[in-house]
Amino acid sequence: MTDKPIEPWKTLSTRYSYQDQWLGLRSDVVVLPNGKVLDPYHTIDAPDWVNVIAITEADEIVLVEQYRHAAQRVLVELPAGNVDPGEAPEAAARRELLEETGYAEGTWHALGSLFPIAARFTNEVHAYLALDVRKIAAPAPDGSENLRLHEVPWTRLAADLHAGHRPILEAAQMSSLFLLSLFAQSSADPRISRLRL
Amino acid sequence: MTDKPIEPWKTLSTRYSYQDQWLGLRSDVVVLPNGKVLDPYHTIDAPDWVNVIAITEADEIVLVEQYRHAAQRVLVELPAGNVDPGEAPEAAARRELLEETGYAEGTWHALGSLFPIAARFTNEVHAYLALDVRKIAAPAPDGSENLRLHEVPWTRLAADLHAGHRPILEAAQMSSLFLLSLFAQSSADPRISRLRL
Repeated sequence: MTDKPIEPWKTLSTRYSYQDQWLGLRSDVVVLPNGKVLDPYHTIDAPDWVNVIAITEADEIVLVEQYRHAAQRVLVELPAGNVDPGEAPEAAARRELLEETGYAEGTWHALGSLFPIAARFTNEVHAYLALDVRKIAAPAPDGSENLRLHEVPWTRLAADLHAGHRPILEAAQMSSLFLLSLFAQSSADPRISRLRL
Repeated sequence: MTDKPIEPWKTLSTRYSYQDQWLGLRSDVVVLPNGKVLDPYHTIDAPDWVNVIAITEADEIVLVEQYRHAAQRVLVELPAGNVDPGEAPEAAARRELLEETGYAEGTWHALGSLFPIAARFTNEVHAYLALDVRKIAAPAPDGSENLRLHEVPWTRLAADLHAGHRPILEAAQMSSLFLLSLFAQSSADPRISRLRL
């Protein structure tokens, strides 16, 4: 505890305990403002992520079901993925939506960016609302993705959440739905304001 | 894309690319249902985490400000931390709240558990509401924590969020506030239902 301004840590050295094309485990030696040295303090480098809340003209949310090896569960999720090097986050969001679901077009709104896990991950997760998307292609997920598409009435998702069910079980994706709910409350557009959760 | 039920991946072998007391980087060789082999597929072992939304009898939310080395930012956060081995999540939540802020007691409600990042982390994050907490001690954070305590009127936090500000910038913590908002909407207790966001 302190009443003084919080100061950043100083990094004495940086090394990668592990690094490949998917993930970097960075292990720094750091000095805290109180003089204590932490060796190592781990952070994880990963590309930025995007989550897409895509709503069809028929008021359905577009979801994908897939096996998640870390969680050891088949999960229903928002279309999501990595931002490629040099790619703008919204472009990544549009690409992932099209690849995973075949949906595109519509009106896009940036809902905000958050640190997924501020103590560990160095990246950010960007959330988008894509309103009135249309199916323009067959899904073309990459070879590691075995996806099942679900178009769920928005009112059913909202009712499930309000009944204490958790159709979506990932914290980062739930935070995107929360950003949508806050955005909806500040919108004068009835197509958006009805998306409050 | 598939219309068949989604099947889990098969794990052919598991090794740890890196492991210490804080973090394990597990690198599996897996076979997908389509026969494709992924080598490696990384997952990260970490202890479960807890987030605490603690509200005082004066209707203030108890927040902690600290430097987060991964985000490279001083952030305002919910009291939070690791679940120790053998510890129940609610006990961890009560311990972290007391250690980081000196607040305790009150009425506790479990808001639910989520996978922080379902594609990468194997752990879960558990969210709690602690209503009518009282300050019973001086904060006693561990040596790596340089914390500044903030007691913020709940109405100010809610107004900030509705105005598009982000007093809390972590996705996992925002998901806990979303779980609180959903819980509040299903509660007949006016002390809880007014916490809808």
